[in-house]
Amino acid sequence: MIAQVSLTRRAFAEFLATALLVAAVVGSGIAAQTLSPNDVGLQLLENTIATAGALFAIIVVFAPISGSHLNPVVTIVDCAIGRRSWSEAIAYIPAQIAGAIAGAIVANVMFDRVAIETSTKVREGSNIYFAEVVATFGLVLVIFLLVRTGRAMESVVVVPAAVAGYITAAYWFTSSTSFANPAVPPFIIAQIVGAALALAAVVVLTTQAKEEVVSE
Amino acid sequence: MIAQVSLTRRAFAEFLATALLVAAVVGSGIAAQTLSPNDVGLQLLENTIATAGALFAIIVVFAPISGSHLNPVVTIVDCAIGRRSWSEAIAYIPAQIAGAIAGAIVANVMFDRVAIETSTKVREGSNIYFAEVVATFGLVLVIFLLVRTGRAMESVVVVPAAVAGYITAAYWFTSSTSFANPAVPPFIIAQIVGAALALAAVVVLTTQAKEEVVSE
Amino acid sequence: MIAQVSLTRRAFAEFLATALLVAAVVGSGIAAQTLSPNDVGLQLLENTIATAGALFAIIVVFAPISGSHLNPVVTIVDCAIGRRSWSEAIAYIPAQIAGAIAGAIVANVMFDRVAIETSTKVREGSNIYFAEVVATFGLVLVIFLLVRTGRAMESVVVVPAAVAGYITAAYWFTSSTSFANPAVPPFIIAQIVGAALALAAVVVLTTQAKEEVVSE
Amino acid sequence: MIAQVSLTRRAFAEFLATALLVAAVVGSGIAAQTLSPNDVGLQLLENTIATAGALFAIIVVFAPISGSHLNPVVTIVDCAIGRRSWSEAIAYIPAQIAGAIAGAIVANVMFDRVAIETSTKVREGSNIYFAEVVATFGLVLVIFLLVRTGRAMESVVVVPAAVAGYITAAYWFTSSTSFANPAVPPFIIAQIVGAALALAAVVVLTTQAKEEVVSE
Repeated sequence: MIAQVSLTRRAFAEFLATALLVAAVVGSGIAAQTLSPNDVGLQLLENTIATAGALFAIIVVFAPISGSHLNPVVTIVDCAIGRRSWSEAIAYIPAQIAGAIAGAIVANVMFDRVAIETSTKVREGSNIYFAEVVATFGLVLVIFLLVRTGRAMESVVVVPAAVAGYITAAYWFTSSTSFANPAVPPFIIAQIVGAALALAAVVVLTTQAKEEVVSE
Repeated sequence: MIAQVSLTRRAFAEFLATALLVAAVVGSGIAAQTLSPNDVGLQLLENTIATAGALFAIIVVFAPISGSHLNPVVTIVDCAIGRRSWSEAIAYIPAQIAGAIAGAIVANVMFDRVAIETSTKVREGSNIYFAEVVATFGLVLVIFLLVRTGRAMESVVVVPAAVAGYITAAYWFTSSTSFANPAVPPFIIAQIVGAALALAAVVVLTTQAKEEVVSE
Repeated sequence: MIAQVSLTRRAFAEFLATALLVAAVVGSGIAAQTLSPNDVGLQLLENTIATAGALFAIIVVFAPISGSHLNPVVTIVDCAIGRRSWSEAIAYIPAQIAGAIAGAIVANVMFDRVAIETSTKVREGSNIYFAEVVATFGLVLVIFLLVRTGRAMESVVVVPAAVAGYITAAYWFTSSTSFANPAVPPFIIAQIVGAALALAAVVVLTTQAKEEVVSE
Repeated sequence: MIAQVSLTRRAFAEFLATALLVAAVVGSGIAAQTLSPNDVGLQLLENTIATAGALFAIIVVFAPISGSHLNPVVTIVDCAIGRRSWSEAIAYIPAQIAGAIAGAIVANVMFDRVAIETSTKVREGSNIYFAEVVATFGLVLVIFLLVRTGRAMESVVVVPAAVAGYITAAYWFTSSTSFANPAVPPFIIAQIVGAALALAAVVVLTTQAKEEVVSE
């Protein structure tokens, strides 16, 4: 299916998918802050459940067209392991960034807001960069272990459900600040570090050395 | 299976499925308002989770009989793309409307209420029509991309889980007013606009031009 | 698989499965009341999510052994449509009742309680018998439409997920009193009425008249 | 796939999987306590949902490599029924313990904490050892009935979804103290008792006596 869809159309799919996801994340964040003003944890729970629902639906729907990357980090790792050519990243990444901006605008128009201030920040400090490394490490590990072990192909719901499950947890066990500040340089560095560590772990876990096969 | 079920029986299935869904949406809305009077967000969370559970169950159960449209917009788009004849819409849509009325009555009798006032409204204003466009756009996109890419056929849980996931998010990222006021004219116009835009996106994303196949 | 398991073992499976489910329902009800004393809706939400998780796990685990009925109503309908002999109901139903009692005792011992008073009652009145009819109608409809359309066989997760989804909704859109008072006579009558109506609907929706096949 | 992965790599997978799970459990516990200080039940709900999401993702991802045991009890039962050699347990169990420690450290660094005090304890007393027996009994029963009936092989999502569902319930229907104190001797004894009872039940439910096959 992917081979039959032109790059322009696939980039449009990434634009649309990312816009829908960001509209869901930002919109549900605004709604949660407005409707549950007295408990920040409850706000985050509401935001988590809305995001998990959107992620599952969006990934399962767009995967046969563009792969549903939704994130430059996923696209870059996909190119790094040779599943896509780097020329595709040049189309995908701007589409994802434009989609994120469009989705945030849509959410703010729906909720009649001019200024954007929607992050449900948990905490601040230098430790959040470490949290960003962990969050990205986990996301890349989940996706690419499923791909490399062939498990992603066994059922169309595996990747959407695993990513939605992982992000549900990651909203809680790490700072979710990255959703609000994806372009701040220290976060970008943290994401690259997390992705590189995850890719190393994936390679270690799925590449079989010859002597091992023999010695087993 | 569908071809073997008479139109009368399929319309009865749509009536029953829509009645169950609306009973679940309205009934859980009443229960949430009664049991969690101090936090409107918590009410919406309770309503969301009950609705998602009902949607998954109802779609997976009635799909082999009637398709589980549950909504005139879905039926109309299904006819527009040629998967059903328009004569079927004439049976389905009244069944869905009658089912919605019956479901609301059942919910109110169960909770011993005479008047109906169950919407957990988030906000009001002209922007909610835009939100209705977005909500319908997303629903139609989710369902018909799954259908057109063939993904809907790969597992019987894909469409029910994706729709339940999407509506979970849509309860939060858009106004859910449409569930309470489906027949108000501006909402109908918004739904038609959203459905038309989604159908255009589905066609763009899944129709392959000949020159593209060649040029790839 | 079922044909290879003796009736004694299958009845033991029903005992164990029902005990685990009731321990989960009652235990999570006690925990919710204790930990969230200020919001009855939040208690019900916690109880709902724990019950849905337990139901999915228990149904998927015991289904290949006993069918995971967990409820005399399901067993009786299964016999009524000829999928099981009535002699099996004579073994299953006492096992389910004994399991429910054992599960309630286990929950109370775990939480160090002597008296049992765990129902998170929503409301009272004659309308709750109507709600019980609706709740049973929906449960029987969900299970036996999946069975009769063959959908239950397409994936092992369909029935567990659909039942868990339905009960999630039913905790909210109907009174969940039936979980606490299954043996009170008016409830038993309401359950029989609901089951009979559901069975009639299943037959109407899945039995094809000969002239219909011809006239299509 | 398992046969092709060296024991060292599989043990590394158990280390990584357990570290991610414990980081999610401990980290979400800290976040829930911080963000929802006024309702312990809401904290446990947030902790439950984050844990369920992490469990599903981690089990589905690591299962094709190491089996995703995540727990010495599961490894020991797997050896006891002859699916793994005891020499493997000698590699797995230290990896799981080291992973749990690493995960707890990661969570505390992310949240900038020195001391660890994250358990959302429900209650205390001698009855909690009984609860630990029940909790372990259920977990071992769920996993090994799915394995022994062959159901685990029918879809890659069955075991992850069933375990996540069961733990969701177990967070509520039993004391979740075991997550905080896995190495306290009375808990270890309780876990062994629970696992042994579950294994006996699994054998009873899935081993067919010859006379039964004849007499059916």
